[in-house]
Amino acid sequence: MIYGRVALIGLGLIASSMAHAMRRDGTAGEITGTARSAETRDAVRQIGFCDLVTDTAAEAVADADLVVLAVPVGAMEAVAREIGPHLKPGATVTDVGSVKRAVVEAVKPHLAENVHFIPGHPLAGTEHSGPYSGFPELFENRWCILLPDADTDADALDRLTRLWKSMGANVDTMEVDHHDLVLAVTSHCPHLIAYTMVGVADDLRRVTDSEVIKYSAAGFRDFTRIAASDPTMWRDVFLNNKDATLEILGRFTEELFALQRAIRTGDGDHLFDYFERTRAIRRGIIEAGQDTDAPDFGRGTKR
Amino acid sequence: MIYGRVALIGLGLIASSMAHAMRRDGTAGEITGTARSAETRDAVRQIGFCDLVTDTAAEAVADADLVVLAVPVGAMEAVAREIGPHLKPGATVTDVGSVKRAVVEAVKPHLAENVHFIPGHPLAGTEHSGPYSGFPELFENRWCILLPDADTDADALDRLTRLWKSMGANVDTMEVDHHDLVLAVTSHCPHLIAYTMVGVADDLRRVTDSEVIKYSAAGFRDFTRIAASDPTMWRDVFLNNKDATLEILGRFTEELFALQRAIRTGDGDHLFDYFERTRAIRRGIIEAGQDTDAPDFGRGTKR
Repeated sequence: MIYGRVALIGLGLIASSMAHAMRRDGTAGEITGTARSAETRDAVRQIGFCDLVTDTAAEAVADADLVVLAVPVGAMEAVAREIGPHLKPGATVTDVGSVKRAVVEAVKPHLAENVHFIPGHPLAGTEHSGPYSGFPELFENRWCILLPDADTDADALDRLTRLWKSMGANVDTMEVDHHDLVLAVTSHCPHLIAYTMVGVADDLRRVTDSEVIKYSAAGFRDFTRIAASDPTMWRDVFLNNKDATLEILGRFTEELFALQRAIRTGDGDHLFDYFERTRAIRRGIIEAGQDTDAPDFGRGTKR
Repeated sequence: MIYGRVALIGLGLIASSMAHAMRRDGTAGEITGTARSAETRDAVRQIGFCDLVTDTAAEAVADADLVVLAVPVGAMEAVAREIGPHLKPGATVTDVGSVKRAVVEAVKPHLAENVHFIPGHPLAGTEHSGPYSGFPELFENRWCILLPDADTDADALDRLTRLWKSMGANVDTMEVDHHDLVLAVTSHCPHLIAYTMVGVADDLRRVTDSEVIKYSAAGFRDFTRIAASDPTMWRDVFLNNKDATLEILGRFTEELFALQRAIRTGDGDHLFDYFERTRAIRRGIIEAGQDTDAPDFGRGTKR
C-alpha cells in the first residue's frame, strides 16, 4: 500500500484506469471518487472501481492522503477552490491535466501551505472517454511527467513516483513551461491539425456522400482516431496552452506553405528531401519503444 | 485460375502482396516480375513469390494476360513506353497508382488498340515498402477502385474485378478526376500534413534532444506512422495530383486559421463545436468497417 486513501476528482478515462490499476496492485487502501454529473457517479457506483462515490468533491477528499484532480483543465480552479478547506494536512494533491502552467496558476492559490501540490501529466490515453473506458494497463510503458518545483517535499514526490511506477509508467520530471512547449509539439498541435483535416473532409463529405468514410483507410483514418478525443478536454487544452500552441502552429503553417509552393512549382527534390527526413523520426520512435514496427491495419490485430 | 500469366512491373509492397495472394489462391497460372533495381530483383528471386524475375519490363510482359504497373506514378510513362510494343493482343494492363488522371495520360498513348487498359487503385498499404513488406492479407476488406471508361471491355473489367475480389478487396468503380479529388481529401492531404508536422517537430527536436520522440505517444506518433511512407511514391503523388491537393490544402489552411483565431481570442464555443462535429465522422468510419473501435496503443496488440 502506498496511500491509505486516494480521492479521484473526475471519473473519466484516466481516473478510472488509475482506480483499476490501484485495485489490481493494492496500492491504495481505499478509493473515493466524485464526478460533476450524476449520471457518471451512478455509472461508477455500478462499475464499482471506487469504494465510495460522493456527490461533492469536498466529501471525496475528506481524510484522503492523495487527491487526484482528473477534470478538464478549465474545471481545475473551481475544484481546487472547493476542496482547499477540506484537505487533510500533509495530503498530496496532484492532477493529470494536459497543460501545466495554467493548472498551477488555477490550483496553487487555493491550497494550504501544509498540503503538497505536485502537478502531473500521464501521457496516455485512447480516443475513448468516460468511466467505462478505463482499464488497468493504460499507463504501461507510457511516460508520466511530474512537475515538482524547488519547494517540493522529497518524500511526497517519492511516494507519488512510486504510485505511477506501480501502474507501469516511466516517470520523468520537467519544468512547467518547458512541458507546455514540448506537449504543444507532440500532442496539442497534432490534435488540432487532425481535427482541422477531419473538419475539411466533413464539408466535402456533403458533396461526395459517404466516399470520405468509405475510402478512409488511405491515411485519413488515423486522423479521425485522434480527432475523436473528448471535445471538452481539448477545448480546454487549447484555451490554456495558447502561446505555445500558436507558436508551433505558426511554424507548421510556414512549413506547409513551403511544401505547397514546392507542389505548385513542381519542385520534386524539396518534397523528396522533406519526406526522407521525416522517416528518421519514425525510426527513432520505434527504437524508443513508443510504438511497434508492425504495420497498422486499423483492425483488431497487428502483424 | 483467373489469368494464365500475370506480369508485375515493380516489386514493392503492393506487387509482392498481390503475388502472395495470387499464389495462395491459385488465381494466376504463372507470375513474372521485374524491378528497376538489381537489388530488388535479386531479393525477389530469393523470396520466391515470382516464377520468373526478368531484368527488363519488356521481357516480363511477354505473353502476359495481365500486366500490373506497380511503380511510382512518375515512372509510369517510361514503363508504358517500354512494354507497349511487347504486349500480347487482348492482354489487360492495369496499375495501382495513387493518382489516376496523370497515369491515364502517361500510359494510354503507349498502348495498342487491342490491349485493355483499366486503371486501378487499391486503397491499402502500410508504412513499410519494398519486396519484403508484402503479405497476402493486405487487401482484405479494403477498397480497390477501378476506373473504366465508356470504351472498356466488359469481360476484361469483369475478370480484373474477380481478381481483386479473390484477394479480399471490395471493388468500386469511379470516374478518373473524381477519384483524384476524393483521394486528395482522404489520403494525399492527410499525408502532406503529417509530413509537415513531423518536420516541424524535427526542427524542435534539435532544441529539446529526444523529448519529441520520448513523448510521442500523446498524438504525434500517429503522424509519424503516416509520415514514414515511401518518399518517392509520395513525391510523385503530389507532383501528379497538384490541382486537387492544392485546392484541399487551401480549404485546410482556411479552417486552421479560423481555429487559430478561436484559440487566440479564447472562443471556446467555436473550438468545442468543431471538435464535437468531427467525432461523428469517426463513428461513421467504424460503422463502415474501415477501422475498429478498439483503442490504439501503438503496441503489438489492440483491445
